[in-house]
Amino acid sequence: MDHQVKFVVEASEAESITQKLGLPSVRHLLPVLVEPAQSLARPPISNYHVGAVGLGSDGRLFLGVNLEFPGLPLNHSVHAEQFLLTNLAVHHCPGLLAFAVSAAPCGHCRQFLQELRNPCSLQIHITSQHQNNHFEPLREILPNPFGPFDLLDDETPLLLERHNNGLSLLNRDGGDPCNGFDSNPQSKRSGNFLTTNGFCKYAETERSTLLKIAALEAANNSHAPYSGCPSGVAIMDCDGKIYKGSYVESAAYNPSLGPVQAALVAFVAGGGGGYQRIVAAALVEKETANVRQEDTARLSLMLISPQCDFTVFHCCSFDENGCKND
Amino acid sequence: MDHQVKFVVEASEAESITQKLGLPSVRHLLPVLVEPAQSLARPPISNYHVGAVGLGSDGRLFLGVNLEFPGLPLNHSVHAEQFLLTNLAVHHCPGLLAFAVSAAPCGHCRQFLQELRNPCSLQIHITSQHQNNHFEPLREILPNPFGPFDLLDDETPLLLERHNNGLSLLNRDGGDPCNGFDSNPQSKRSGNFLTTNGFCKYAETERSTLLKIAALEAANNSHAPYSGCPSGVAIMDCDGKIYKGSYVESAAYNPSLGPVQAALVAFVAGGGGGYQRIVAAALVEKETANVRQEDTARLSLMLISPQCDFTVFHCCSFDENGCKND
Ligand SMILES: [Zn+2]
Ligand SMILES: [Zn+2]
Repeated sequence: MDHQVKFVVEASEAESITQKLGLPSVRHLLPVLVEPAQSLARPPISNYHVGAVGLGSDGRLFLGVNLEFPGLPLNHSVHAEQFLLTNLAVHHCPGLLAFAVSAAPCGHCRQFLQELRNPCSLQIHITSQHQNNHFEPLREILPNPFGPFDLLDDETPLLLERHNNGLSLLNRDGGDPCNGFDSNPQSKRSGNFLTTNGFCKYAETERSTLLKIAALEAANNSHAPYSGCPSGVAIMDCDGKIYKGSYVESAAYNPSLGPVQAALVAFVAGGGGGYQRIVAAALVEKETANVRQEDTARLSLMLISPQCDFTVFHCCSFDENGCKND
Repeated sequence: MDHQVKFVVEASEAESITQKLGLPSVRHLLPVLVEPAQSLARPPISNYHVGAVGLGSDGRLFLGVNLEFPGLPLNHSVHAEQFLLTNLAVHHCPGLLAFAVSAAPCGHCRQFLQELRNPCSLQIHITSQHQNNHFEPLREILPNPFGPFDLLDDETPLLLERHNNGLSLLNRDGGDPCNGFDSNPQSKRSGNFLTTNGFCKYAETERSTLLKIAALEAANNSHAPYSGCPSGVAIMDCDGKIYKGSYVESAAYNPSLGPVQAALVAFVAGGGGGYQRIVAAALVEKETANVRQEDTARLSLMLISPQCDFTVFHCCSFDENGCKND
């Protein structure tokens, strides 16, 4: 067993591990990788380590683990299944075929999984319960679901499908959008611009521009068809590496995954390391948003990563004719 | 059909309505009351009105509706099924036998319902799908659940069962507990002490004492067996009436219901009216809590009820011998 567990395994590598272990198919490999995945979980409140390993429609494997954040209410937690889906989204994998997980998925996750296209046929193996290579479809553990099909038309993109929310940043004077430059930084909190190594990789304005563009990109990929309030967060580590997280809404509202959580998934999956390595973050959302992330994003980042400098940029959406929608 | 819908219907009244309508049993009345219940929902984001009507083990009927809060992330929403359970808790009803609801319960709610004793046998009727008096047990719509049974021993009280968390408030000097008097008010935000009628029912210190005692009571009834961080909120309306809400934790963490949400359920169910009628609120939680409600409670109250004066009191728990646990 390879002990260097990674959050994304290339298709060719998955095939080669499968052969090396003498397994009949890559799908048989999923349960085998669950225990190593569990070791990557970060649950300082429950100490309950959950691991999930999914097979993408492009043959890659993706890992998911649970994250918990002391000092915050429990709804800030990220479940392994939510991590898994966000990991696929971050790496532009267009579909999830099957996954293995260490414990029975909770109702919150069974609901979150409904945001996928054709969720009912998604195949699930629970390593603590199922024998060998037994998988059961999601519909078996969430019959008669409430979901996107109850609220959206068939044209609306679902999770992992291509989104473009048509968002641009606003000029300071509220005039024409400028695609990410010279926009209006809101609520700046003075922070520590030094990295843990004692020097800055980027000047402050350069860093701010990079984060702003990344957060706008994340907001444009955000899945928020129910409220119409997409948002995105970008975080930068002390090496200057940027991680993007798109807000993901659930038809059932409460299981929605916040943009900070999504960015933290990208950070953890991307090998970002400890949260103290986060030096800066930016949020992009609509100024008039009915579902507003700003205060909650600031609150959670201040607890998770107190040294992090946090900036908010407001955007608005434009239709194909360049007319401002809101 | 009686148009004066109430959030709690006494057993005798439920019997008399049942007879008046010529229904064979009170259980047949539940679906009939769902539409009137829906009219009491407060969903300004989705405009999706959900109503639930439950039959308590003491013969009373309880209503539940969904609440949504513009300006906050969607996980602040309260679903009709969560409202229903909280309404039973507020009115000390020891069990829920069955309920009717306007739409298929979401996975988040199916999970939250697991906090009841013997949840599997709870009978559910979905008015938009089921015929006549068809009810199905919760286990049919959430097979193979993850729940309290996975984490707690059989002695630990579950939702609607008697809780006493052994909490007392701390003196300013951190000395002996004082059962609700002379304790340490934290983070006071100056607020408007006038009621909408232009006068105060209580002097500020008197109001503070009443809210503190009520919030402590709510914290002592809080269901928080997973984190060991119980909390409670009390809110006062402009008539001086107090509403108590106990934090309710879910084994799956994220579906947990915050203490502000629980208090707002008590407020709405108790005929409190519009949120602008809330003049003051208090939170009681442990100073050292790993799952901390203070910042989130302040943030949400400031948005829901900006005129509300909010105070936090810290408590600690004592065992039977009077020894401080934490
Ligand atoms: Zn889960
Ligand atoms: Zn629900």
